[in-house]
Amino acid sequence: MKLFHSPASPYVRMVMALAIETGQAAKIERLPSAAVPVKPDQTIRVHNPTGKVPTAILDDGTVLFDSRVICEYLDAQHPGERLFPAEGAARWQALTLFALAQGLLDAALLARYELAMRPAEKRWDEWLAGQLGKIDASVAALEAEWIEHLEGRFDIGALGVACALGYLDFRFPERDWRKAAPRLAAWFESVAERPALKETRPQG
Amino acid sequence: MKLFHSPASPYVRMVMALAIETGQAAKIERLPSAAVPVKPDQTIRVHNPTGKVPTAILDDGTVLFDSRVICEYLDAQHPGERLFPAEGAARWQALTLFALAQGLLDAALLARYELAMRPAEKRWDEWLAGQLGKIDASVAALEAEWIEHLEGRFDIGALGVACALGYLDFRFPERDWRKAAPRLAAWFESVAERPALKETRPQG
Repeated sequence: MKLFHSPASPYVRMVMALAIETGQAAKIERLPSAAVPVKPDQTIRVHNPTGKVPTAILDDGTVLFDSRVICEYLDAQHPGERLFPAEGAARWQALTLFALAQGLLDAALLARYELAMRPAEKRWDEWLAGQLGKIDASVAALEAEWIEHLEGRFDIGALGVACALGYLDFRFPERDWRKAAPRLAAWFESVAERPALKETRPQG
Repeated sequence: MKLFHSPASPYVRMVMALAIETGQAAKIERLPSAAVPVKPDQTIRVHNPTGKVPTAILDDGTVLFDSRVICEYLDAQHPGERLFPAEGAARWQALTLFALAQGLLDAALLARYELAMRPAEKRWDEWLAGQLGKIDASVAALEAEWIEHLEGRFDIGALGVACALGYLDFRFPERDWRKAAPRLAAWFESVAERPALKETRPQG
C-alpha cells in the first residue's frame, strides 16, 4: 500500500500508528507530500480531490481516504485482535471516542491555521477562541467521562486520543493540557512508550 | 433516540435521510440546537465537547457522535438492506465516497464561515480560494470517477454525496456546480425525489 504521508500530520500518524500496532508497517510505502490548505498538493489531488493526507493507494490501484477509512481498512487486514470492535456497544463507544479525537484535532488544526498561516491582521479572535474552547472542552471530557474507557483496552478510540494529545504537545505546548487533566496525563504517559506511538512522534 | 438537530446542517441531514431511507424516522426525537463555531451550544456540549450537530443520545443514555458514527449505528438497527456494505471492496469504496462527501462539505462549511460569519476585513482570499477549489475538484472527481458508483445502488456514499450537493444548492447556488458536471446533475435529479432527500431539504 502506498500512503501519501506527512511527518507532522496527526491524521497520518493515526494510520501509521495503527499499522505498527497491528504489525503491518512494512506493507506501507510512504509517498512524500506537501499538503497545506491554501496550496494543495496536485499529486495527491489526482487521487483525492480534497488534496488531504493521508490518502492511500492499494496495490490494485484502489484509492482510500480519509484517515478513518484507511485505519478501518488496515485493521481488517491482519489476523490479530481488532482495534475497531466488530459490533455492539463496544463498537459505538470506540467510534464515538475516535470521532472525539478527530473533532479535537479538527479544532486544533483550525486554530493552528489561524495562528501560524493566516496573515496576523486577518485573524478573528472569536473564531480562534471558539476552536481553543473546543480543545479545552474535549480534554475536560476525556478526563471526566472517557478515562475509564481509555484505561481499558487500547482500541481505535484510545489510539486516536493519543495522537490528538500528541499533536497538542507538538503545536500547543504552552497550553499545557495536562494541568486540568492529571489522570489523562498519567494514561498518556503509560501509552506513550508503545512502539506505535514512540515511532510516530510528530516532526516538522 | 434523541438527536440534536439543525434544519440547515448537511451533517444532520445525512442522519435524517438515512433514518427515512431505512424506515426509522419515527424513532428520532429532534432536539433544537444553535450550534455555530464561535458560540457553541452549551446544551450540546454537555454531551459532545465539540458542541457539534448531529449528536445523538440513545434511550440508555449512551451518547453517539459524529454524523458518520450515528449513520452507521442507525444502519445497524434495521432489518433491511444496509447502506453501509458489511465488508470487502464494496465497503471501502462506499466509505471512501462518503468521506469524499464529508470532505467536500468540510470545505463548503469553511468557505461559508469565511464569507458569511467572519468580519469582511478579516477574510483571507487565499484560504477562501483553497476551500472553493476543493469543492470544484470534488465535483469534478464525482463526475469523472465516481459517477458509475453513484448510478449503482443508493449506498451511504451516494446518500452523502446527495446531501453535499444539496448543500451547494442551498448555500452556493451562484457557483452552479451542474455546469461542469452534467452526468452528476442528472443523477442528482434522479435521486432528489426519494423521500429521504425530499423531506430533508435544508432550511435556514
